[in-house]
Amino acid sequence: MIPTIEWIVGKNCIKMIDQTKLPFELVFLELINYRNVAKSIKDMNVRGAPAIGVTAAMGMACAAIEYRNEEYNKFKSELEKAAEIIKATRPTAVNLFWAVNRIMKKLEDLAEKTGNNTNKITDGLINEAKLMAEVDINTNKSIGKHGADMLESGDTVLTHCNAGSLATVQYGTALAPVYWAVKEQGKNIQVIADETRPRLQGARLTAFELQYDKIPVKVECDGSSGLLMMLGKIQKVIVGADRITNDAVMNKVGTYLVALAAKRHNIPFYVAAPVSTLSLKESSKDVEIEQRNGEEVANILGKVRIVPDGVEVLNYAFDITPFDLVTGIITEDGVFRPDELLKKYP
Amino acid sequence: MIPTIEWIVGKNCIKMIDQTKLPFELVFLELINYRNVAKSIKDMNVRGAPAIGVTAAMGMACAAIEYRNEEYNKFKSELEKAAEIIKATRPTAVNLFWAVNRIMKKLEDLAEKTGNNTNKITDGLINEAKLMAEVDINTNKSIGKHGADMLESGDTVLTHCNAGSLATVQYGTALAPVYWAVKEQGKNIQVIADETRPRLQGARLTAFELQYDKIPVKVECDGSSGLLMMLGKIQKVIVGADRITNDAVMNKVGTYLVALAAKRHNIPFYVAAPVSTLSLKESSKDVEIEQRNGEEVANILGKVRIVPDGVEVLNYAFDITPFDLVTGIITEDGVFRPDELLKKYP
Repeated sequence: MIPTIEWIVGKNCIKMIDQTKLPFELVFLELINYRNVAKSIKDMNVRGAPAIGVTAAMGMACAAIEYRNEEYNKFKSELEKAAEIIKATRPTAVNLFWAVNRIMKKLEDLAEKTGNNTNKITDGLINEAKLMAEVDINTNKSIGKHGADMLESGDTVLTHCNAGSLATVQYGTALAPVYWAVKEQGKNIQVIADETRPRLQGARLTAFELQYDKIPVKVECDGSSGLLMMLGKIQKVIVGADRITNDAVMNKVGTYLVALAAKRHNIPFYVAAPVSTLSLKESSKDVEIEQRNGEEVANILGKVRIVPDGVEVLNYAFDITPFDLVTGIITEDGVFRPDELLKKYP
Repeated sequence: MIPTIEWIVGKNCIKMIDQTKLPFELVFLELINYRNVAKSIKDMNVRGAPAIGVTAAMGMACAAIEYRNEEYNKFKSELEKAAEIIKATRPTAVNLFWAVNRIMKKLEDLAEKTGNNTNKITDGLINEAKLMAEVDINTNKSIGKHGADMLESGDTVLTHCNAGSLATVQYGTALAPVYWAVKEQGKNIQVIADETRPRLQGARLTAFELQYDKIPVKVECDGSSGLLMMLGKIQKVIVGADRITNDAVMNKVGTYLVALAAKRHNIPFYVAAPVSTLSLKESSKDVEIEQRNGEEVANILGKVRIVPDGVEVLNYAFDITPFDLVTGIITEDGVFRPDELLKKYP
């Protein structure tokens, strides 16, 4: 697995895979300006809740470097501005807020400890962002270990979108149990990836990374998962999440339909996500579902137009899967039924 | 509405809209050789169960014209060959078999009546194919009239794929109730069209024809219908069918997921199809689900590749919606619950 995002120490920059170019070109971006970092999140050069979180934290580190020579009040107000700009990029991704808020909290802690020394604060924020990247990888491995126990050798696992290594710093969330089951437990697992319109993260990214790691993968259109379940071709479903509220899972649009079909066919439906994705104080009704530009649908990958001019296109980025459709939520701490999850993280 | 297929008398040829070029180019094909007609069905220049049926019948008329100067046994055996070639193009489309078999039956009737006069038989088969086209339009208008009573002014109707005018000779099946409700009853109806991967008939064809007829239409990705139902944005679902067995509806892949979501949200789910689509002697287990070339998915409209080389792609053309998810089936004779349908057409 190639790291999705890395902090390059000598250059003080973020190096990331440009995921809009995959699977046909493996191109890296090197970003030093937080405004470009925000743009890379907005434009989905980097995507996936955990990857966005760490990228946002590193973007805040870039902002700190930019203003490290200013006096503290100016430094802080510029970082507050950067925080707002970065948080505005993807309104549904709770990890984004979690990561930026964690950096802002760290800033205040460090200010107190260092007597508002912006140089020392900046070094501390860089370290914090790097630590968050390390923690992400370890978290994902824990998700993998717990989730792998849900899989039996011979299983075909359906996944929607990409919650693999490319959605995180490394190792993935929804795909982590597959990696762990195959690599650490020697189980024979294959994956079916929904292509995942409109941006085709399943066809492009999930297929790319599993093929790269030599795990058997097939791609299907989003509409055919119900039929495949009816035909007995899918034993488990694992998806990621952008946010988990106290009643539902928000994930890439299309997830809800997969969950309905899994319920119909008594196929276990798992959501794999780090604890940072939990937002259990709120209900799904409180969440704004991001509506993106219809052009993403109408003009596929910016290359082929499919909708007549003048016809409006709806492009909701996420949907809502109520807890009654969810068999288990796999976090770094274990696998929990929704009711157990609410007790575990009160 | 532009006729989808027409028999051009002077030229003795089939004129059809090349639907692979829509919505950006309105191009017509003129075909005189039945092998090219078969190819146009296989390649989906023409698609939609009723349109395929009439095209197949007209293709048989082309074969008759080709062999009209042969003696009767040769004429008949060549038409039998043509029948096999045409029937092999789309294995799930029951209208195809129905139409070809109807022509072969007519051939035998005419042979008896005319003393095996191949010229007279040929004229009779041409007339039969033309009659089938007329009947299709009248059938669709009847479907529209019955189905329109299910719609209330203000409704937004979700449809999957294209079962509109372009899927028939004219007027459509799933869209016929919408046309009738708007044009004949003055109701205010809008449509949401699933884009319908892999061939995007919803985004391309349903959007094109509704826009052409000035009926409000929006396009969405196949994955988002569940969310739209949850948000209260859809009041009715109407889809077409390629085959209706005694337990289920076979229609474009993705239909089953829409039906599951409609059931969850208590949204009426209607299937509009002519009686020729019924195949009530068999169960869905007897039906071969057509698997098409994965390239249709992997290389969108032959223009943009989305799957890494070497990754297998599943491309089932149809799925199976069990009767318990179907509110009503709209035929030219009325609207029937599935149990009523089985009684009506024993």
